[in-house]
Amino acid sequence: MIIRKKRGNFLEDFRVGQLFRHKVGKTVTEGLFNAFTEFGMTTNPLSKNLRYAQRYGFKGLIAPPGLVMNIVFSQSVEDISENARANLEYRDMRFGAPVYSGDTIEVETTIIGVQPSSKEPDRGVVHVQTTGRNQHNEIVLTLQRKVQIWKDKQDVKVEAAALAEALQIPCDLQIPAYEENRKYRELSHLTNPDTYFEDFNIGDVLEHSRGRTVTTAHMELTATLDNTSQVHSNQYLVDQNPAKYIGGQLIVYGGIPFNLCLGLSCPDVGDNSVGDICYITGRHTGPVFVGDTVFAATEIKDKRAYPGRPDLGVVSAILRGHKFVKKGDSWEKMEIFYLEREMAVKRRGHYA
Amino acid sequence: MIIRKKRGNFLEDFRVGQLFRHKVGKTVTEGLFNAFTEFGMTTNPLSKNLRYAQRYGFKGLIAPPGLVMNIVFSQSVEDISENARANLEYRDMRFGAPVYSGDTIEVETTIIGVQPSSKEPDRGVVHVQTTGRNQHNEIVLTLQRKVQIWKDKQDVKVEAAALAEALQIPCDLQIPAYEENRKYRELSHLTNPDTYFEDFNIGDVLEHSRGRTVTTAHMELTATLDNTSQVHSNQYLVDQNPAKYIGGQLIVYGGIPFNLCLGLSCPDVGDNSVGDICYITGRHTGPVFVGDTVFAATEIKDKRAYPGRPDLGVVSAILRGHKFVKKGDSWEKMEIFYLEREMAVKRRGHYA
Amino acid sequence: MIIRKKRGNFLEDFRVGQLFRHKVGKTVTEGLFNAFTEFGMTTNPLSKNLRYAQRYGFKGLIAPPGLVMNIVFSQSVEDISENARANLEYRDMRFGAPVYSGDTIEVETTIIGVQPSSKEPDRGVVHVQTTGRNQHNEIVLTLQRKVQIWKDKQDVKVEAAALAEALQIPCDLQIPAYEENRKYRELSHLTNPDTYFEDFNIGDVLEHSRGRTVTTAHMELTATLDNTSQVHSNQYLVDQNPAKYIGGQLIVYGGIPFNLCLGLSCPDVGDNSVGDICYITGRHTGPVFVGDTVFAATEIKDKRAYPGRPDLGVVSAILRGHKFVKKGDSWEKMEIFYLEREMAVKRRGHYA
Repeated sequence: MIIRKKRGNFLEDFRVGQLFRHKVGKTVTEGLFNAFTEFGMTTNPLSKNLRYAQRYGFKGLIAPPGLVMNIVFSQSVEDISENARANLEYRDMRFGAPVYSGDTIEVETTIIGVQPSSKEPDRGVVHVQTTGRNQHNEIVLTLQRKVQIWKDKQDVKVEAAALAEALQIPCDLQIPAYEENRKYRELSHLTNPDTYFEDFNIGDVLEHSRGRTVTTAHMELTATLDNTSQVHSNQYLVDQNPAKYIGGQLIVYGGIPFNLCLGLSCPDVGDNSVGDICYITGRHTGPVFVGDTVFAATEIKDKRAYPGRPDLGVVSAILRGHKFVKKGDSWEKMEIFYLEREMAVKRRGHYA
Repeated sequence: MIIRKKRGNFLEDFRVGQLFRHKVGKTVTEGLFNAFTEFGMTTNPLSKNLRYAQRYGFKGLIAPPGLVMNIVFSQSVEDISENARANLEYRDMRFGAPVYSGDTIEVETTIIGVQPSSKEPDRGVVHVQTTGRNQHNEIVLTLQRKVQIWKDKQDVKVEAAALAEALQIPCDLQIPAYEENRKYRELSHLTNPDTYFEDFNIGDVLEHSRGRTVTTAHMELTATLDNTSQVHSNQYLVDQNPAKYIGGQLIVYGGIPFNLCLGLSCPDVGDNSVGDICYITGRHTGPVFVGDTVFAATEIKDKRAYPGRPDLGVVSAILRGHKFVKKGDSWEKMEIFYLEREMAVKRRGHYA
Repeated sequence: MIIRKKRGNFLEDFRVGQLFRHKVGKTVTEGLFNAFTEFGMTTNPLSKNLRYAQRYGFKGLIAPPGLVMNIVFSQSVEDISENARANLEYRDMRFGAPVYSGDTIEVETTIIGVQPSSKEPDRGVVHVQTTGRNQHNEIVLTLQRKVQIWKDKQDVKVEAAALAEALQIPCDLQIPAYEENRKYRELSHLTNPDTYFEDFNIGDVLEHSRGRTVTTAHMELTATLDNTSQVHSNQYLVDQNPAKYIGGQLIVYGGIPFNLCLGLSCPDVGDNSVGDICYITGRHTGPVFVGDTVFAATEIKDKRAYPGRPDLGVVSAILRGHKFVKKGDSWEKMEIFYLEREMAVKRRGHYA
């Protein structure tokens, strides 16, 4: 008997309240850590310089937020979005325990809403809560996302439904205590000096100077994350029906520009962050293809005290990614990424 | 004096009975482990989730069979096949001790046959037995292969010859004992539930759902394995004489689709395997080039008891790889890989 | 307020005597170690085979010289050459303590000369001394380089200046002692037998047999090294003004062919080297682009005793890299790299 194996679920397979304990799990090897951290051009020494990370009370190099997000997200892809058309929104993504090389992350997802499309009978939106834990059962990340998913069979009827109450997932950024005798100042030359809490002014827009061109390596990076979505790596699938796929070509997995934008902004806003606290909302506002050059900018929206931590402050910002598209003889700027972000940022008075 | 250094041997350099102790050796860093394991999209948690691997009694993450094969094979390339035209057949490839990150693998090869081509005076076939050992002198893999090799000088006469008796290389899959108190069931959600011994039916053909497009990263992966064969990475060589090379272009090293086919099949047949026992025979039945999308299918050929292990069974299967080639307006399926494979598969009654 | 963040300095920003303590620092993960060591096709088992490296008295696998150079060099890029047009010369590059996985390298640079161009008002040359240290404050590498740097504003006047006296940076290759009871000979089959001190003849030119085609992976490798120079990875920047950039396209970061040439030469000259001592001078004599195939050759210039080490000798050589460029129907050889190099090479009598 010939059996066409399917992996991944379609719109009609999801039920509100359903819990997926995702398969496999992922140990963060030094290979994965390097591939993604370096690829993204993170400049925060907490993720690059062991001497510095230990000085701050961490056990080792800590995975940058873009890697934590990508690990947890990707573990959910097979069950949730292998058959997705597009990822519509990230929401309330909160960071918890730091992730180190050698940690093993396992992930689960609860379906909190299902909404068939009112216009297109072949698709709909699933709203989920995904949570990743390390081998000590500490939460490292929890997020909601809304994802547009194909039906397997167009004529199956799907009812709109949603959980009556939001899930309560406790997840707060864990940061080692401030201890004056740690002599942080000895290492303050390792970060950009204009990136302390005092340096950010509400309303400023920082245009980050670097750009980065995306290559076919996006496919190997996506595989490295265990992301099995076919629209990123199966050219034959796209060639069979280009009109069905955005841009008629392989699209770069969103976690790649997500991570790149965080990295491109890092020298200007992230060098003296001890961690990202929360991403309020985020969207891929334009597609990225091989050959595009990704840029980023940050708009400072708010600053406030960090409760219980006089050495830190909270900076709220919008991180935007963009690329340029050639139209005739000129280049048009196109936004590709939007992220509302809260960071825990060191105060100069305590650290430099 | 100008000395054109040559590395690798030609047909006339091989003598039956000759033993090559291959150079260099290879320590499996976490970087190599990650690059190849993740690239291949293995989904078996024994290679991905340390908590799971330890629960099963392994010391750490175990290298998937495609990585073990690639490490041992590639160490033999300089001496045996750097000047090969094509790898014709793998035979009786047997797995032994598990390979962990940090292990150092050294490899040796005995020439068991030499056969000049009866039609083409510039080439012939060498038949070899290659064996890899770890730092404890345990065998991790032994295999035979037949490889078609160019002569350096066409007019040198090469006699057909073969060893009178096959070499006896003891190499059996090492699997930790089954211990009921290990609570395997606690982690059974981490594998696909339709991949236990009981789930396979003789005669079934499982068409694996995913495809994967090959990029120029094949060159870096090939280098990562120390495979020095020039037909995979030296474009200038091919450009000098395209007619000499298959497809007139760089050909992807066979270990790449070998590993990809194992990975693409893994969610459907490999998730609950504790190891590949033996590859009876294997061949690259078609070439793979950059841009091809690789697919795989598995035909279940036989099932039997695993001697001394009531918790396991042996599944015999044929793993086939294929791609599609555009002819005019349509796509033709072309087989690229054929492997007869025996796996040690968990029985549901003992594990889930 | 919109702030166009700039990173990196321009010609007018440099002052003779100025000390840059470079930011971030870099812990050598096994991922980085593997990515670069394997990419370069190093064949010296000191960097590949842990059993071998330990037999020689090293604590672990040692980073090959191309990786040490790339780590130290790249840490200096943001401050020194992010806005460079071209790297003109490496000079007096000396190796010190071995670099292991897990080491953390921090780097500083002193400006030893500034020279505005006499012909082109928009650029000039900066001469620097860059030194990298590990977490024990041991120097792992020191080098001088001359780099051509754009001005930010053409009309700023820049005066020529230079340090009155050269800096004295003590940095000598650290090699474990020779101990007869280590049984080096047991492992001598792991290196090429024609690469001992006795095998090299002054005047010989060794044409290394392998070539390696460069892919777009150069961009990920460059990012992995933290090299932020935009001319290697920002296609949009080049597209805005192709005439400004060499070849009118993205140019491959020089550390890539530097490392490749070392690797391609390794089986013929580096297998029995215990370390590179010094690079007297080095230059990128031609550009490398994606698709080029890199080759290398070594000219033996001198041999002499290694003071205090009767088991070793010093081999002086010129390592040249080249590629072929198609002109009409034929291919022209073009030199791309030139390096005067001193290696500490084992004597056969003591090791094999």
